[in-house]
Amino acid sequence: MPGDHPGQSSHAYRFPYGPVAIVTPFNFPLEIPALQLMGALYMGNHPLLKVDEKVAVVMDQFMRLLHRCGLPLEDVDMVQCSGETMHALLLEADPRCTLFTGSSRVADILARDLKGKVKLEGSGFDWKVLGPDVPDAAGQEYIAHVCDQDAHACSGQKCSAQSLLVVHRNWADAGLYGRLGAMAAQRSLHDLTVGPTLSVSTATVKAHVAKLLALPGAELLWGGEELNGGQHNIPAQFGAMQPTAVRVPIEAVLANIHLCCTELFAPFQVVTEYTDEQLPLVLQLLEAQEEHLTAAVVSNDLVFQHEVLSKTTNGTTYVGLRARTTGAPQNHWFGPAGDPRAAGIGTADAIRQTWSCHREIIQDFAAVDKGWALPART
Amino acid sequence: MPGDHPGQSSHAYRFPYGPVAIVTPFNFPLEIPALQLMGALYMGNHPLLKVDEKVAVVMDQFMRLLHRCGLPLEDVDMVQCSGETMHALLLEADPRCTLFTGSSRVADILARDLKGKVKLEGSGFDWKVLGPDVPDAAGQEYIAHVCDQDAHACSGQKCSAQSLLVVHRNWADAGLYGRLGAMAAQRSLHDLTVGPTLSVSTATVKAHVAKLLALPGAELLWGGEELNGGQHNIPAQFGAMQPTAVRVPIEAVLANIHLCCTELFAPFQVVTEYTDEQLPLVLQLLEAQEEHLTAAVVSNDLVFQHEVLSKTTNGTTYVGLRARTTGAPQNHWFGPAGDPRAAGIGTADAIRQTWSCHREIIQDFAAVDKGWALPART
Amino acid sequence: MPGDHPGQSSHAYRFPYGPVAIVTPFNFPLEIPALQLMGALYMGNHPLLKVDEKVAVVMDQFMRLLHRCGLPLEDVDMVQCSGETMHALLLEADPRCTLFTGSSRVADILARDLKGKVKLEGSGFDWKVLGPDVPDAAGQEYIAHVCDQDAHACSGQKCSAQSLLVVHRNWADAGLYGRLGAMAAQRSLHDLTVGPTLSVSTATVKAHVAKLLALPGAELLWGGEELNGGQHNIPAQFGAMQPTAVRVPIEAVLANIHLCCTELFAPFQVVTEYTDEQLPLVLQLLEAQEEHLTAAVVSNDLVFQHEVLSKTTNGTTYVGLRARTTGAPQNHWFGPAGDPRAAGIGTADAIRQTWSCHREIIQDFAAVDKGWALPART
Amino acid sequence: MPGDHPGQSSHAYRFPYGPVAIVTPFNFPLEIPALQLMGALYMGNHPLLKVDEKVAVVMDQFMRLLHRCGLPLEDVDMVQCSGETMHALLLEADPRCTLFTGSSRVADILARDLKGKVKLEGSGFDWKVLGPDVPDAAGQEYIAHVCDQDAHACSGQKCSAQSLLVVHRNWADAGLYGRLGAMAAQRSLHDLTVGPTLSVSTATVKAHVAKLLALPGAELLWGGEELNGGQHNIPAQFGAMQPTAVRVPIEAVLANIHLCCTELFAPFQVVTEYTDEQLPLVLQLLEAQEEHLTAAVVSNDLVFQHEVLSKTTNGTTYVGLRARTTGAPQNHWFGPAGDPRAAGIGTADAIRQTWSCHREIIQDFAAVDKGWALPART
Repeated sequence: MPGDHPGQSSHAYRFPYGPVAIVTPFNFPLEIPALQLMGALYMGNHPLLKVDEKVAVVMDQFMRLLHRCGLPLEDVDMVQCSGETMHALLLEADPRCTLFTGSSRVADILARDLKGKVKLEGSGFDWKVLGPDVPDAAGQEYIAHVCDQDAHACSGQKCSAQSLLVVHRNWADAGLYGRLGAMAAQRSLHDLTVGPTLSVSTATVKAHVAKLLALPGAELLWGGEELNGGQHNIPAQFGAMQPTAVRVPIEAVLANIHLCCTELFAPFQVVTEYTDEQLPLVLQLLEAQEEHLTAAVVSNDLVFQHEVLSKTTNGTTYVGLRARTTGAPQNHWFGPAGDPRAAGIGTADAIRQTWSCHREIIQDFAAVDKGWALPART
Repeated sequence: MPGDHPGQSSHAYRFPYGPVAIVTPFNFPLEIPALQLMGALYMGNHPLLKVDEKVAVVMDQFMRLLHRCGLPLEDVDMVQCSGETMHALLLEADPRCTLFTGSSRVADILARDLKGKVKLEGSGFDWKVLGPDVPDAAGQEYIAHVCDQDAHACSGQKCSAQSLLVVHRNWADAGLYGRLGAMAAQRSLHDLTVGPTLSVSTATVKAHVAKLLALPGAELLWGGEELNGGQHNIPAQFGAMQPTAVRVPIEAVLANIHLCCTELFAPFQVVTEYTDEQLPLVLQLLEAQEEHLTAAVVSNDLVFQHEVLSKTTNGTTYVGLRARTTGAPQNHWFGPAGDPRAAGIGTADAIRQTWSCHREIIQDFAAVDKGWALPART
Repeated sequence: MPGDHPGQSSHAYRFPYGPVAIVTPFNFPLEIPALQLMGALYMGNHPLLKVDEKVAVVMDQFMRLLHRCGLPLEDVDMVQCSGETMHALLLEADPRCTLFTGSSRVADILARDLKGKVKLEGSGFDWKVLGPDVPDAAGQEYIAHVCDQDAHACSGQKCSAQSLLVVHRNWADAGLYGRLGAMAAQRSLHDLTVGPTLSVSTATVKAHVAKLLALPGAELLWGGEELNGGQHNIPAQFGAMQPTAVRVPIEAVLANIHLCCTELFAPFQVVTEYTDEQLPLVLQLLEAQEEHLTAAVVSNDLVFQHEVLSKTTNGTTYVGLRARTTGAPQNHWFGPAGDPRAAGIGTADAIRQTWSCHREIIQDFAAVDKGWALPART
Repeated sequence: MPGDHPGQSSHAYRFPYGPVAIVTPFNFPLEIPALQLMGALYMGNHPLLKVDEKVAVVMDQFMRLLHRCGLPLEDVDMVQCSGETMHALLLEADPRCTLFTGSSRVADILARDLKGKVKLEGSGFDWKVLGPDVPDAAGQEYIAHVCDQDAHACSGQKCSAQSLLVVHRNWADAGLYGRLGAMAAQRSLHDLTVGPTLSVSTATVKAHVAKLLALPGAELLWGGEELNGGQHNIPAQFGAMQPTAVRVPIEAVLANIHLCCTELFAPFQVVTEYTDEQLPLVLQLLEAQEEHLTAAVVSNDLVFQHEVLSKTTNGTTYVGLRARTTGAPQNHWFGPAGDPRAAGIGTADAIRQTWSCHREIIQDFAAVDKGWALPART
């Protein structure tokens, strides 16, 4: 980028915003606030941090650790309060930028009230497509295991948890549902492979399942009941559902996209199937959703991969037979993809883009020619 | 960015938003819409373009040129309508991203109503600081000329026009005001070196000048009257003011920042002075403003440059004896600096950041080991 | 890269070498000298250009075009002379950097005599591997066509021409040799799809073919004779061979690598086959060669691609069912790969690395503290 | 860098060379071999390391530390031998790339014998220019201290030690030589602020000083004698000189560039002076040297800085009143600047460019159209 003349040169810098805020949810009590806080600090900002009050004690301890390690007390402000209080605080403080991780509904309210001075990681809706190429038995077992983990681990309360599984007919024919159902059946309260859902009750999940089962051709694949037939000590305000899946024909999904693509933040997923000829319907479905978070294209078929990737938009998209939607901490770029408000997390590029802004400084220092005079007006 | 294992690799892509909108103001009828439109197209978006209705005819002709040169008719939608209609249209269409260039007031309304899915180039408030080092006579004349152009060219209706001139006492002592006043006096309707202001009337400017002159120690440096004593044919709804400057002591400016830093979009500026000891007051003033657009630090003194640059934030900051606030088309990064909504214009980096979003694609294709089996639950 | 203290910052620049030289071969009379010359100029160097004397008239005309378009006469020096004269000239002038494109033998002599102040694009030896996945008939025909072009177009005198074809047994079984032989048989002097070879005679090629056919299990696949049974008017100092291929078992190739991997710069290639189990032998063969230029891995099997790519080194490597060794002008990075002397051509990165060097400028201007005094010696 | 068609994309990778060698000198027994070795390992190479035999014991201990920390025994080969043996070894092993840090004379021999497959950090010749702007007393004392350290620390045996000091008349008038002479006089064997020179004897330095003093107008500024009048126990094969400076008029320097710019690797420097009008002579002198290593432009005058920087070439150039030639470990880019063989050290960019090479991998996998057929020959 040369200048107009000798002595002029232009340099781009990434500058901190200065005063910023961070608001994070219950489901990752440490990872999300710690990574975003450190990113904000690395870029030179002064963060005000608020963690969901149900789990704030975890980050509170981490702050004490940071102080013990040398973080100056005045570099971070951590506030313990409800979401309503934080909302009022943000309106009054008007930080240069607020990072919010949480539900799309609250994200939109914040974005409106803060006039867009936000970076968001909405909850999104995460899908996985299994392509036409089915590997050998070990490969099928491995991929079923990844699907089970993506949908059911932490009772489906990862922001990147798989909520829609789009299955090529070849996989259905190879017995995928049997493998998945068996894995789901192994999960139990006893070994903590299932547990309570904090933001959605058993009744809510059951009602949603019932609506889906009323769609033409829908059927329950596994689950659908309360854990242990209701014999547990999970408090009533939380949910306690078995890992659950409902299969809905793709035509019915397309005719009821809003219903089928509602995220529950519970161990629940919609499953649908397609044939080679129906791939265009799949692409239509994937792009009909508003929110794009993570996605996975489980296939080693390069032409298939390209067809799906080039016609969809997701912040973080895994591709290949080992593709997953959750659990790969080195590649974090979530948020509402295809959206100027999208935040990233964890990588150097994500930290730079989320926590700093562009400043262009142009040097222009050449001496003025001794004979210079004002140009004549004509 | 290596992955966890062989066969995993992560690539970052910049993806288009898809459907986007561009809303541009009257003052650059061609440059702003043409550069932003081309940027949006280069990154693969489908733009809906709306130019201020007073000047839209210019861009309308440019669109015809583009079509003649081969732009497919369906690649850009240009709409001819009022701001109100466009606002309603945007709410209904909900584009993935809307670029708005114009007043900060409208920018904030749009940002709120579009839930932050915007990129902004607000009008901002542009300042210039003249440092302690005064060059020889030719240098002084050149710098005075740049100041005159930055404040008065196009009757102060460039978005980067200088609205606050902060003058080191050495420059005042060297006769800067005499040079500037003489240059201002040369401007006339006859040769179009002054002209109408489209968004602010004569009365508004005069009322603002009167308020400033009422501040303690304030004085009129030049101008202050209607052009040609009112003998002109500029319609009454537009403004017709002489290039005008009011000098206000720095203490009075600091006590009345909102008044002194109100941008008029007219050939008007506030001038204030400082001594070496008062530099901290200057820095306090510069950072007290809400909106940061372009700025200039006119000095070849490296230590002075560093002191001002490291304690201020502006999107595009010129530094050096030739520093200007307007007119360097190769270095465009305006917008509300230090703000996540800030847009850029013209450079490759500005186009990428304004008109595309991050997408991370992680390949993960390694064959599953033949002997792989589900890990035992413990 | 922060400095030790305020006021210190470090910027990396790419600087031109200044006086440089360019020496290019006969086979691309325009593309190679034009691209390298423009690259050298873009980065600010002053090039001395020497094109192979048999074809220099082409670049001579291009220089006149450049002058007509405004290139200052003194910006490039073009010299018309023999290789020996140029060698003497280079030793005397000692340019800061000399780009040589041509045979590896001459490249090594130049590198030695110029003490390594060179960038090289040696002729190398280009291989193509056909993987286990054989597509449908149209795909087979297309890939055979690419193989035919890579090996036989311009009578094999592209620097990236395919000289070794490594064929998976699946392709042999699918009738690849029949397709290739038929395409080779279509080539004729009449339509210029074959022609003279400028640096290798008919006798030399025939002698080389005879040596290869003497290897255990070797057989002639196609060609092997002089064009038109010797009925042509190609001068005797040039070569006039039919497109020719000799198949050699992979064990024999490995036992005679130097012979089998000698590049002829003629429409000639060695063909060898492998099974899945023999892939390690193929990798051993590919890495046994000294010179690495372009390569192609013709497969859409991701695991196979990864296995070959991660165990070989080539400057420009094409991968995928459409992979080729020649003819993709947008991706030029040849030279002796894995070699600090390697040059690139055509891309922005190639131009920067071939035609400029690193300069680090560290600003360090902070004022010295008023009370600073010499540290006491202890 | 888009491809020709869907499914084609090009990615640039930095690849290791594989087998490489590192040869380092006596003067930094740990820093140079440790940084270069780690850089080579970080990029995935397999290094053979040879440290100057006089000091190899230091690096030998560091290798043991690395092994203790987990470095696999087979990842690095360290050889203990003379330079002659190493030379023979390199010719036989023919590593893909050899990094040599040491004298320019040996560097040229290696570059020739290894046919240019080298990266070099030659000893070079380091200059410093003091500009026209002389700061206050504390600033002068600080800068004199930096000059004293750059020229005399480690008895001038840093590869970036200042060997030529070019002094603006303003500095001479301000008493610079008095300050420097006093600092030189403080250095003594007793506190190890001077010591033996390992590669140059007392007699050699004295003979060189005598030749310089014979030039017209030359005078001894300080030093010139053996340490302690010869009363010391430094062995005879090493040197034992006082810190020494000879002032030579700039015209005489220009007339005897080879003599005046010979590097001794001892606490010795040539000093010369210039006026504003003589700056072109200074620039002529600076660019007349063959080898360019580090340099310093001691001035906060932006126009002066630009004049010198834009007309000289040095790998690492410090600029500003605090500029130094030695001792800033975060900014290492030495070697023969303006030379394709130049190596860097320590920074991420230096490691990448010194220890890896470019590999371009082009994916091209789109399915062939079902109807594809061989184009008809015409």
